[in-house]
Amino acid sequence: VVIDTRCNRPSGDVTVITVTSVAILGLGLIGGSLLRRLGSAHDVRGYDPDPGTRGAAAAAGFQVAASVASAATGADLVLLAAPLPAFPGLIEAVASHNPGSLVSDVASVKATPREMMRVHGGRLRYVGGHPMAGTERSGFEASDAHLFDGATWVLCLEEETPLPDWLAMAQLIAGLGCRVVPATAGEHDHAVAGISHLPHVLAAALAGAAGDDLARKLAAGSFRDGTRVAGTRPELTAAMCDSNRDALVAALDTALATLTDARDVLRAGESLRPFFSTGYDARQRWVGFGMGGERFTLDPAAGNLRTELLRLGRAGGHVDEVATHELHAWRPVP
Amino acid sequence: VVIDTRCNRPSGDVTVITVTSVAILGLGLIGGSLLRRLGSAHDVRGYDPDPGTRGAAAAAGFQVAASVASAATGADLVLLAAPLPAFPGLIEAVASHNPGSLVSDVASVKATPREMMRVHGGRLRYVGGHPMAGTERSGFEASDAHLFDGATWVLCLEEETPLPDWLAMAQLIAGLGCRVVPATAGEHDHAVAGISHLPHVLAAALAGAAGDDLARKLAAGSFRDGTRVAGTRPELTAAMCDSNRDALVAALDTALATLTDARDVLRAGESLRPFFSTGYDARQRWVGFGMGGERFTLDPAAGNLRTELLRLGRAGGHVDEVATHELHAWRPVP
Repeated sequence: VVIDTRCNRPSGDVTVITVTSVAILGLGLIGGSLLRRLGSAHDVRGYDPDPGTRGAAAAAGFQVAASVASAATGADLVLLAAPLPAFPGLIEAVASHNPGSLVSDVASVKATPREMMRVHGGRLRYVGGHPMAGTERSGFEASDAHLFDGATWVLCLEEETPLPDWLAMAQLIAGLGCRVVPATAGEHDHAVAGISHLPHVLAAALAGAAGDDLARKLAAGSFRDGTRVAGTRPELTAAMCDSNRDALVAALDTALATLTDARDVLRAGESLRPFFSTGYDARQRWVGFGMGGERFTLDPAAGNLRTELLRLGRAGGHVDEVATHELHAWRPVP
Repeated sequence: VVIDTRCNRPSGDVTVITVTSVAILGLGLIGGSLLRRLGSAHDVRGYDPDPGTRGAAAAAGFQVAASVASAATGADLVLLAAPLPAFPGLIEAVASHNPGSLVSDVASVKATPREMMRVHGGRLRYVGGHPMAGTERSGFEASDAHLFDGATWVLCLEEETPLPDWLAMAQLIAGLGCRVVPATAGEHDHAVAGISHLPHVLAAALAGAAGDDLARKLAAGSFRDGTRVAGTRPELTAAMCDSNRDALVAALDTALATLTDARDVLRAGESLRPFFSTGYDARQRWVGFGMGGERFTLDPAAGNLRTELLRLGRAGGHVDEVATHELHAWRPVP
């Protein structure tokens, strides 16, 4: 892993970010898959608090550190791939053993880790990230070097984010074959509340609808798909949803209003046809989203780069290559 | 298709039901798949009101009738595979052109067609059915001879259902490789409200949660699976749900209470961990359902056969072979 990004800042300075060594803290599904994807090169090392996981990663041929300190010390980039409750301790350890280094993460919410970095991060530089990839399985044994193939990967761009750091992360992630979506933590958390956290809540509620043996016997495709993510380990799902409280409450309020309307329509003896037509149209719009689009380039030295990147993310576009003098990007054409 | 069932009734009489000719009215996904599955034998013929569908079925090598009357006349068994709103007219046509024949159907609700048969069916004998198989695609072009492989197929057993007719249908359906589940229409409709109709309502509500382009961009596995059935043609889903009004209102009330609780827990700053644990346990119980079970036989001449079959269905069991002197069945061992 060698990343070398130059960013001509509006001031005229040139900032060069070089990432040659990466530490991955937490080797579950996502961290383990990252370890596998970044390869067994000598400049990537992993750490997990579970000795069995460390043993499995070492047995698979990867460099494994025996402590957070030894993993983080000297790394150009530290990737936090642990559950969120472990973040404050990990961040403090990294700030202590590798002050000033670049930190990213793969947590499924982004405002909470941003706040944790602000409180515990000292001089660390932070670019929050979220790969939109996963499965209902978990743990290193479920990890897969191909988990991120073609995945969408949000990289947070805030007022305080140094652009050269963002570009270095974007270069790394785009180099994995991922689509890098720029967004603020707030925009990200609002979006995933609806399209990721709400599905988990609905799935858990639906699972209870198979309340007797005849129902369990008859449950088939619509129940299986509608409850698939209810099979995720509940502590992981709860940690994800609990940490996106406000946005998920809002998404649930909207869903409750929609479902209450549907119930009332049905109870009044009217047809659910308009309700299902609305849902059908919304799904078709999603299925067709991004069918047409255009490639274009952005100038990493442009003064309005931050604004342009965030506009790209809001339009459903992404960056897929970061070169020294240009960013290659794609945006859907409505 | 030759079905010949003997049933020793408690009275001592022997009833012989012979089914050698079958008419399928409606050649959409289910009816078309049945036509394909039952084969191009000369004793199976299909009818559809759409000339294009009739042409496609004929071009695929099947016997196609030009009218309901010519399809139904003389058939030992008439299978209604049309949308529910068409049932009253079809039932009256069958009662007029083939009075006294055996009728079954594949509608996804069972109380409504039962009532339609009572009102419009004259001397027709009726065994309601529901194959638990489908896809979000529809129409004859989506039909597939293998759609029913290993499927669960409910056959309704009511007080008024003649046992020899039920056994003839069970023999036909088990002969397709399906698991025949005996249940009353009320039991069936209660169960499917929760495990089939509720998933469709939740999917339609969830589809709307991808409300902007960033959300559409980030939506991935949990959204895709949670909304899959929202891609079903809305008029089909609405017809299914509208015709199971009371049971679906009850299922929605339960889901709304569960989701409101989850929202309140989250809003109060508490963890959703217990909520997700309950959902996880419910899903695991479904996944593990029927992992262990036992085969046994039932005597078709037993005086308590109707009671035993309904008990079998409530326990999540099924009949998988109907022979002249015994029924082969399976029930899960808790």
